[in-house]
Amino acid sequence: MSNYHAFTEAEAIEYARGIEGMFPEGAQLVSREIGDGNLNLVFHISDPVSGRSVILKQAVPYAKVVGESWPLTLDRARIESEALIIQGRLCPDLTPKVYAYEPDLALTVMEDLSDHIIMRRGLMERNRYPLFAGHIGEFLAKTLFFTSDLAMNQQEKKLQVKAFINPELCKITEDLIFDDPYTDSPNNSFDVHLRDAVESIWADTELHLEVALLREKFLTKAQALLHGDLHTGSIFIKPDSTKVIDPEFAYYGPMGFDIGAVIANLLLNYAGQEGWSPSDADRADYRRYLLDTVRDVWTEFETRFRALWNEHAADRMAKTPGYQDLYVAGLLQDTIGFAGAKMVRRIHGLSHVADIDRIEDAAVRERAQRLALAIGTALIKRGRSARSIDEVLDIALSATK
Amino acid sequence: MSNYHAFTEAEAIEYARGIEGMFPEGAQLVSREIGDGNLNLVFHISDPVSGRSVILKQAVPYAKVVGESWPLTLDRARIESEALIIQGRLCPDLTPKVYAYEPDLALTVMEDLSDHIIMRRGLMERNRYPLFAGHIGEFLAKTLFFTSDLAMNQQEKKLQVKAFINPELCKITEDLIFDDPYTDSPNNSFDVHLRDAVESIWADTELHLEVALLREKFLTKAQALLHGDLHTGSIFIKPDSTKVIDPEFAYYGPMGFDIGAVIANLLLNYAGQEGWSPSDADRADYRRYLLDTVRDVWTEFETRFRALWNEHAADRMAKTPGYQDLYVAGLLQDTIGFAGAKMVRRIHGLSHVADIDRIEDAAVRERAQRLALAIGTALIKRGRSARSIDEVLDIALSATK
Repeated sequence: MSNYHAFTEAEAIEYARGIEGMFPEGAQLVSREIGDGNLNLVFHISDPVSGRSVILKQAVPYAKVVGESWPLTLDRARIESEALIIQGRLCPDLTPKVYAYEPDLALTVMEDLSDHIIMRRGLMERNRYPLFAGHIGEFLAKTLFFTSDLAMNQQEKKLQVKAFINPELCKITEDLIFDDPYTDSPNNSFDVHLRDAVESIWADTELHLEVALLREKFLTKAQALLHGDLHTGSIFIKPDSTKVIDPEFAYYGPMGFDIGAVIANLLLNYAGQEGWSPSDADRADYRRYLLDTVRDVWTEFETRFRALWNEHAADRMAKTPGYQDLYVAGLLQDTIGFAGAKMVRRIHGLSHVADIDRIEDAAVRERAQRLALAIGTALIKRGRSARSIDEVLDIALSATK
Repeated sequence: MSNYHAFTEAEAIEYARGIEGMFPEGAQLVSREIGDGNLNLVFHISDPVSGRSVILKQAVPYAKVVGESWPLTLDRARIESEALIIQGRLCPDLTPKVYAYEPDLALTVMEDLSDHIIMRRGLMERNRYPLFAGHIGEFLAKTLFFTSDLAMNQQEKKLQVKAFINPELCKITEDLIFDDPYTDSPNNSFDVHLRDAVESIWADTELHLEVALLREKFLTKAQALLHGDLHTGSIFIKPDSTKVIDPEFAYYGPMGFDIGAVIANLLLNYAGQEGWSPSDADRADYRRYLLDTVRDVWTEFETRFRALWNEHAADRMAKTPGYQDLYVAGLLQDTIGFAGAKMVRRIHGLSHVADIDRIEDAAVRERAQRLALAIGTALIKRGRSARSIDEVLDIALSATK
């Protein structure tokens, strides 16, 4: 990494100008730094005349949120770039195109998706995306199936596991999702009105046992190459298009973690709808849309995953009668458990979601937070015995007053 | 590996002479090549005057069994050496001392254990080793616990997983143990009198499902650094000492695979006792000793593993009430299933065991083979629901006419 240095906007423009075939000769390029301010610089470089644009994403060797004092290796830029390339090969319509990757600069050059919006914002604006469940079901089915032992040469898969060993970013998940929320950790952050609910989570050993089992799977189950952070802030969307971005948490882990992340974030938005009351009927209707989407995400995933298995399983033993059914049943259970864990951490852990935090009225926000905790903890406890995605919908409905 | 070349005996002697402090100045060293002829050269270098000796084990870049045409990377020498060093740090009394490792030569210099015998031979001679269960229980508990997420810094564990990605040798296990024996593969090898039993294994889809699940665990469950080939041919023994050797199959996998390997090989010897009939009472008595050892191996492992967990768990969440019990219950189930798979492959797969193959009378050998298959398949089918090691003993006893 000896040639690494963080780009200035002028350098980003200069670099972009050098990309062959990207911009017309002599274009007056404009740069905006649009990173979320945590781990990366993100330069949006555009030519107002031709309308062309491109994204330069550069990792910085520290977490900006705490200044330069929290070092992070730049290897995550390699992991993100390689994961994007694999996902792009499998799902070209559902990922940003990667034009170049510069290891020395920890820099990925990729397609500008500014005509899409971040899905979290889309849901907060109560948009509906009828194609989303099919799109994300396809993304999940293809990326998880084709990177697993079911479809890959199993020796090549091991080398891919090796290439995606990702200790630093996995640690963030292990601590912030599977540990801190269940104990009185200084990393937690929550509204004072929530203390009784949080304390009962800290005391709930039945819940802790389920979380320990989920965490063990996250630590040991090298089932497929995960996106690793597949919340609605990692999805760009518009009515006719879905793009999954930011796979820097990619590593080989349990498939249910990615599927659960999508479902968790739909349900967090569901809980956040406490803050919206044009009429009870409208709110109930939007919530029904979200629950239908939860069910459809699973169903679209399962249908495609089984079809891929039937058509493309490379492994002779994958065709053993009964194996696919047991495998998929296990995926559903993992999905439900992980979905619960991904919800709970967003209420009183370090990192929250705008769907709920943006509710200004404290009493209403509290109702949304308690609803999310009720759904999340119930999902965690149900995971190991669940048999149908409908149980998730039942849990959400019965937790809703 | 540009400096690699396979040693001649003269070169092995020359190298040994250069090891500081090993042999007296001017000693007349003697070399014997004692490798089993498969994957490695093994030079036993000794000085008849001082009585000192040492082992030089050198990997060759092909499998000798098929000439030079089956290439194997020399990386397995690194893996074996690094595994020996880790196991030696955890269990210094139960492993050969490693004096040096030369990466360029794929050469490990280690303690000579010629005062021990290979345990398979010891059991074939019907020796009893009352300390063995305690020794191997300690080896299993310490090597598996201390290399797992329960005891390690979880980020360092990931780097260790990476260092022990071992595709070539895992492939041997995946094919020869978990695939070939369950289908009409050209790799299988069996006496013609056994064809009906083998064909019913090829047709037994209930069995295949359990094997597919075990194989999935072998492929994905990075629980601990395994020895990976812990049969009684990988154990040197004498009444007061047990030494585990040859961890070239080491990789991060499910703990039960190692524990099951030990139990399987005790039970293969149990089946092989068909070939011994001094009196029915003596045979029954030796078999009772073997079954007691099976039970004790598990019990000694479990007791120590739980004690290590209670004292040395690094992971806060490992202390969650109920977690240890569930974890150990899962280990027992894995152990029983893997033990069954390790037995079955030794009867009609590529690689057999002398405990049974050395029985000269074909009718007696056939009884031993059918007994081993009956026990092995019953263990595979019991694994997922087993609750006690006594079930293994019951299965063995009830399969024995």
